[in-house]
Amino acid sequence: MSEPTKPRVVIVGAGFGGLFAARALANKPVEVLLVDRNNYHTFTPLLYQVATCALDPSEIAYPVRNIFRRKRNVEFLLGEVVTVDTNGRLLHIHSGGQQYQEPYDYLILATGSTPTYFGNDSFQRHALELRTLSDAIELRNHVLRLFERATWSDDPAQVAALTTIVVVGGGPTGIETAGAIYELYNHVLNVEYPQKQLHARVILVEMQPHLLAPYPEKLRKAAVEQLRSLGVEVLLGQRVTEVAADTVHLGDGTVIPTHTLVWAAGVKGSPLADLLGVPLQRGGRLPITPTTAVLGLNRVYAVGDMAYLEDPDGQPYPMLIPVAQQQGELAAYNILANIAGQPLRSFSYHDRGIMATIGRSRAVAWIYNRIPLRGFLAWLAWLFLHLITLLGFRNRATVFINWVWNYFTYDRSVRLILDQAPGEKNF
Amino acid sequence: MSEPTKPRVVIVGAGFGGLFAARALANKPVEVLLVDRNNYHTFTPLLYQVATCALDPSEIAYPVRNIFRRKRNVEFLLGEVVTVDTNGRLLHIHSGGQQYQEPYDYLILATGSTPTYFGNDSFQRHALELRTLSDAIELRNHVLRLFERATWSDDPAQVAALTTIVVVGGGPTGIETAGAIYELYNHVLNVEYPQKQLHARVILVEMQPHLLAPYPEKLRKAAVEQLRSLGVEVLLGQRVTEVAADTVHLGDGTVIPTHTLVWAAGVKGSPLADLLGVPLQRGGRLPITPTTAVLGLNRVYAVGDMAYLEDPDGQPYPMLIPVAQQQGELAAYNILANIAGQPLRSFSYHDRGIMATIGRSRAVAWIYNRIPLRGFLAWLAWLFLHLITLLGFRNRATVFINWVWNYFTYDRSVRLILDQAPGEKNF
Repeated sequence: MSEPTKPRVVIVGAGFGGLFAARALANKPVEVLLVDRNNYHTFTPLLYQVATCALDPSEIAYPVRNIFRRKRNVEFLLGEVVTVDTNGRLLHIHSGGQQYQEPYDYLILATGSTPTYFGNDSFQRHALELRTLSDAIELRNHVLRLFERATWSDDPAQVAALTTIVVVGGGPTGIETAGAIYELYNHVLNVEYPQKQLHARVILVEMQPHLLAPYPEKLRKAAVEQLRSLGVEVLLGQRVTEVAADTVHLGDGTVIPTHTLVWAAGVKGSPLADLLGVPLQRGGRLPITPTTAVLGLNRVYAVGDMAYLEDPDGQPYPMLIPVAQQQGELAAYNILANIAGQPLRSFSYHDRGIMATIGRSRAVAWIYNRIPLRGFLAWLAWLFLHLITLLGFRNRATVFINWVWNYFTYDRSVRLILDQAPGEKNF
Repeated sequence: MSEPTKPRVVIVGAGFGGLFAARALANKPVEVLLVDRNNYHTFTPLLYQVATCALDPSEIAYPVRNIFRRKRNVEFLLGEVVTVDTNGRLLHIHSGGQQYQEPYDYLILATGSTPTYFGNDSFQRHALELRTLSDAIELRNHVLRLFERATWSDDPAQVAALTTIVVVGGGPTGIETAGAIYELYNHVLNVEYPQKQLHARVILVEMQPHLLAPYPEKLRKAAVEQLRSLGVEVLLGQRVTEVAADTVHLGDGTVIPTHTLVWAAGVKGSPLADLLGVPLQRGGRLPITPTTAVLGLNRVYAVGDMAYLEDPDGQPYPMLIPVAQQQGELAAYNILANIAGQPLRSFSYHDRGIMATIGRSRAVAWIYNRIPLRGFLAWLAWLFLHLITLLGFRNRATVFINWVWNYFTYDRSVRLILDQAPGEKNF
């Protein structure tokens, strides 16, 4: 590539942090290169709906080139960063069997987070995750296959193991997944295919004595109540001690026969953080200053889940989408300020609140960290927020229509078991 | 499974033949077991649209259980038949890591066809096929990945090889695929991502001196003209002699540097036909009587691509969807007639005609084998027929809306490269 006349900003990761950074730099006097290992951005809040056949994968995946097609200063490279040379300001990127060296004037790292097993890496062998679109499809395939087997099994013990689902992690991901899988099995598959009455057990396991740690006590209780009234078994203060192909062992000695373990218990910073050569904060995250610049490095910024910054109370900013979005925009702003010789800004988090759904009509929401909502009202708030965001991304009313249709009819017609051969990566 | 009180009909294959047979037996005094290796039926005429990002996979895949959910006498088993015992009337089926023995009173085989390389099996190693939904997704991933690589390559020879697509086979599949890939590259990807001007060469290779062998001469010529006016290179009377990872050799010595070979040159009967122990007709197809009963076997019927039957002029019925549908219905009728002691019927093909699209607004159609249509009028006829069929299957206006929207806006938003790890098949 020829020498850029404008400063070149390379953004690694097209998640919420990287995307909002790139959007803030579009049509500004910089060249932007956005790198991601996928050619699409994923609307992760709705992954659990892909996993439970309520949404089709393509409805929450937005090709990056589409998003930036009218922004002439933003280019996209499909690839993976393997080395970061912070002295030479050079990235080594693997892409389509080729190697590229991409120079940068400014670098924004935004590759997010990955599941952590808190030292019990052996659990990963039998666990299903829900961080990527690929994960969601795999979980969907898995649940549907087991359902097919369960309809044809005459062995009650085997049927029980096939229709027991253990979800580990009492945060929003675990709660939403547990509620949605329960409904998929017991309100949809079971009802529509009555040749054999199958009932799924969904067990949510959480190490702490409560769900949803950041929420106020009232909403934590509401979440437990709503899950239990739906039919999900909630085991608090329990940890997983052992995971085998067909059983899960809990700390109190309980052994659960199951073929499905969904791990939503915790995340750590993306492995890319290890490439920077700086000491990492707990959870494998890159320490940043309030301007989002990485401590100890020059011209390198980090945003989102992979970055670690404490708020004025000394608490690390949570690994949430609005944090990533706002940090991404701030990194972009500060890079432009730096170029223009203007003062930089510090991160100031506009906390809009948090929410988690429980099944199709319940939720808990903590709006602006002031207004607690529960039940159907909370769910309406969730619906409004997510569908507005969806519409904004895709400009496609059909995604909205599909979703509403599925909601009212339980259509769930996206029940395909679609296995893909691994794509050729070397040619 | 307990002894059925009603006669049990097992149908292997949920394609058009098996599906229409099962529908004709629904709510009749038989028990029906429908077996397929996938949990969905595929609307194959639109596979090339999934491959060229005009449709999403789930829009042409219909979960079998959904189709038969109100038909209480139809059951579905997700699995693969590995043995057929025609004396004991028993099927051995692999399903989800288990083995099942399923007895039948009547058996309908409808597992379709598979690509043939006419003895040059080595070609398969580098060829992409377009027979299944998995194939379509793989081809889509492949084309998009190569596009990504081409945008970043500075080597003109490499760019040429990455943007040259060879399609082998001058039947409807080859023609439709060639036209659609041409448009995807040169009217969509190229135009929307102008950072680098890429132009794809699409070359259609056909062994015979004409395309579309069953069509009248006027329409064969129209197809060639329309393809060439679109920009596709049509090479008639040419055969492929060698296929390597990055080149294709033709009979006249031409060597085409390419990374994409789509094989649509011919099909043979499904390998299941080999399990029956009867001599097969050319193309590996099971010979059937005019009642669709397999020659030499008792209580076994075969329909669709895997079956071989000659019309009154001694010509084998073509491997087309309406043939499969009508044979499937006839097999069902004759089984019921057999049970009731009534006379059987012979196959009488209601030939509605054939059609093939060329790009987004052209087509050739041979309606009822009497009325030739070409150009936009033919394309409208195609549109009408396919959308009516789609609507009938899915009862979902959104599929229609999506399709129309994509047509008018060239939206092509389903441009995802989605690789799947192989699903676990043994648990």
